[in-house]
Amino acid sequence: MSVSATLAANETIMRRRQAGEHVLPLAFGEAGLPVHPELVEVLSTHATRNGYGPVSAVPQLQEAAAGYWSRRRLPTAPDQVVAGPGSKPLLYGLLAALGGDAVLAQPSWVSYAAQCRLLGGTPMYVPTSPGVGGVPDPDLLVQHLDHARATGRRITTVVLTLPDNPTGTAADADTVARVCRIAREWDLFVISDEIYRDLRFAGEDGFVSPAELAPERTAVTTGVSKNLALGGWRLGVCRLPDSPTGRRVRDRLLTIGSEIWSSAPQPVQFAAAHAFTEPAVLRDRVRDSVRLHATVAHAVADRFRYAGVRVPTPQGGFYLYPDFTAHADLLESRWSVTTSADLASLLLDRFGVGVLPGSAFGDDPKSLRLRVATSQLYGDTDADREASLRSAYPTRLPWLRGSLARLDEVLGELLTG
Amino acid sequence: MSVSATLAANETIMRRRQAGEHVLPLAFGEAGLPVHPELVEVLSTHATRNGYGPVSAVPQLQEAAAGYWSRRRLPTAPDQVVAGPGSKPLLYGLLAALGGDAVLAQPSWVSYAAQCRLLGGTPMYVPTSPGVGGVPDPDLLVQHLDHARATGRRITTVVLTLPDNPTGTAADADTVARVCRIAREWDLFVISDEIYRDLRFAGEDGFVSPAELAPERTAVTTGVSKNLALGGWRLGVCRLPDSPTGRRVRDRLLTIGSEIWSSAPQPVQFAAAHAFTEPAVLRDRVRDSVRLHATVAHAVADRFRYAGVRVPTPQGGFYLYPDFTAHADLLESRWSVTTSADLASLLLDRFGVGVLPGSAFGDDPKSLRLRVATSQLYGDTDADREASLRSAYPTRLPWLRGSLARLDEVLGELLTG
Repeated sequence: MSVSATLAANETIMRRRQAGEHVLPLAFGEAGLPVHPELVEVLSTHATRNGYGPVSAVPQLQEAAAGYWSRRRLPTAPDQVVAGPGSKPLLYGLLAALGGDAVLAQPSWVSYAAQCRLLGGTPMYVPTSPGVGGVPDPDLLVQHLDHARATGRRITTVVLTLPDNPTGTAADADTVARVCRIAREWDLFVISDEIYRDLRFAGEDGFVSPAELAPERTAVTTGVSKNLALGGWRLGVCRLPDSPTGRRVRDRLLTIGSEIWSSAPQPVQFAAAHAFTEPAVLRDRVRDSVRLHATVAHAVADRFRYAGVRVPTPQGGFYLYPDFTAHADLLESRWSVTTSADLASLLLDRFGVGVLPGSAFGDDPKSLRLRVATSQLYGDTDADREASLRSAYPTRLPWLRGSLARLDEVLGELLTG
Repeated sequence: MSVSATLAANETIMRRRQAGEHVLPLAFGEAGLPVHPELVEVLSTHATRNGYGPVSAVPQLQEAAAGYWSRRRLPTAPDQVVAGPGSKPLLYGLLAALGGDAVLAQPSWVSYAAQCRLLGGTPMYVPTSPGVGGVPDPDLLVQHLDHARATGRRITTVVLTLPDNPTGTAADADTVARVCRIAREWDLFVISDEIYRDLRFAGEDGFVSPAELAPERTAVTTGVSKNLALGGWRLGVCRLPDSPTGRRVRDRLLTIGSEIWSSAPQPVQFAAAHAFTEPAVLRDRVRDSVRLHATVAHAVADRFRYAGVRVPTPQGGFYLYPDFTAHADLLESRWSVTTSADLASLLLDRFGVGVLPGSAFGDDPKSLRLRVATSQLYGDTDADREASLRSAYPTRLPWLRGSLARLDEVLGELLTG
């Protein structure tokens, strides 16, 4: 499935739902929660801000984001911070600034590979270890780098996702440390996409950022799209290393940002500056969101497990990565399904369940793994979504209970010989 | 002067002013006016919108922008409209979608060439005729295309700016028509950047869009950054041709947008949807803005003329493009100035006047032409800017009068042998 096919799948599902068709929406990676009223208020207060401002960010946002990272064992000066209209353009800008080819975890978020290709490069996929998503397996990474060197290929960068989309898992500190050591040995720049960091189900326990281990060569990206459900506001931030390399990458990123996007939307920059100061009311909001994401992700994972489908235990964000390999024979004989794309199409067309195939994330097309996003189950209205957020037992709410029951039915029908 | 040097110049000027240094700010292309209160209100109303929504745009914005163009002799269906976080990313996306090299007017806005280069291409500059900015001279265009063909170079696109930045002039309908015929003969796609269209001093009189003349191959970009001074809100729209080529370019643009910026900020999309319906109060706002831009641009142009500097009559936007060639000998002997970059540096460092050199816009470095933006003179506070907008005689307001007097002094000192 090509990138534009992923886009098309998401838009098909959106249109079918808008047309009133019942689709169980497990495809789209949006946080699925309303804007906190305090952020509505702050955005409104700053609606008069119409200047382009510096390409990097308004100083208030640089200071607030620096504080956010400094509270997470990453002491940060304001001028290490660059904002953009989403972390996605910042990732594109970083890849463009670094040049050469990047190592990506296999599987990994669709846009990394697509961005590499738009920039004229070819991603070098390195498989992850089971249950350790977002970070290439260290031994395989070295093998791939050896091979790349032997063939004269220029690899400049390794991209990590902590915790991970699509697998919903969080790599352990040891794996991250090994990859950081390899990055140093091979002189690779590290891009650590930590957009889901605040949504780790275990909180900060056991989390280590590559920027702690290889500070001179690691850029961290994050934003307010996932933790505070502000995807549509378009605001991401990047923390560049405080090193000669970091400053070179920063300058190049600013030049690129200046020519592609100018600056992030300024009213949103001020709202995000407020968010990154982490007032108690927003910390509570994030905590409640994590509880909901964890509860629902675990409940959906259980549905797959009851049906005999393996799924790595979700550890953060709102994704699952079930693996139907154990049912390969049945899926082929009964449904003529031999690829993850076949399986995703069957689920949408025959069962009205929208998911994305693992192949969209660079996974082996034959793998029969799917990316399942659980955050669209919280409700169709803001009132329902708020109720999900406030509920001590969200999976007992009618809409969530109904979706889980429907998933049980579908998996039963799909996998019964 | 490289692109990043342009960025650095603007940020240097911004910092000096913030530090309280007196700089006459004639460098930065921001509209220099406050947000209309109705738009503040609409943005606030839509602050709860946090979905990514379709990559193209929310349907409300597609419909409103289609209406905007349909009222300007360009009948438009909603699905011909694609929004982005500024027209700048849309231009980048279009150039990426089209591939190959683009023809640019010499001089033309800095980012076209920078974007071509980021995409691995090389812009083909074609000089404009005197006073006809933004559109390559048709005879020279054919010569350059002949040469490109002879050397096997793949030229796919011609970019026009109507009216123009940096020259502040508006190409006549005949020149536009000739270039459209050439585009058709040579099978070039036309990108018509019409971000300043609503700021033509003559209104729609005599304006013709290439999308009227070569509808099958012309994409138009615009936004709310200039007419309504919402640059920092980051919202642009593109009108794709209703043709097989147009649909191919649209699909590719959406794939690119999906991977680089996801969507435009959604609260801003709704505010822009309101703006593109053109309620009377906002039409009045634009009309008042045009009057102010025209008055001040003409007044500043007069200062240059009094000092013996040629400057094309401004016809739209808030730019002037004075040409110091007549003073070349004096500038060289007295100030060792031999390039536009020298002249811009001298003006900033010795006289505290911030302008950009013509060379930043691809002009001959030896040309001694400068890009002068007049919109930062309207005041340092929103109250002053509103007063400028409401005044029947804005150039008599103390801050504008003071800036014009200072410019007279500087030019006198600079050009007196």
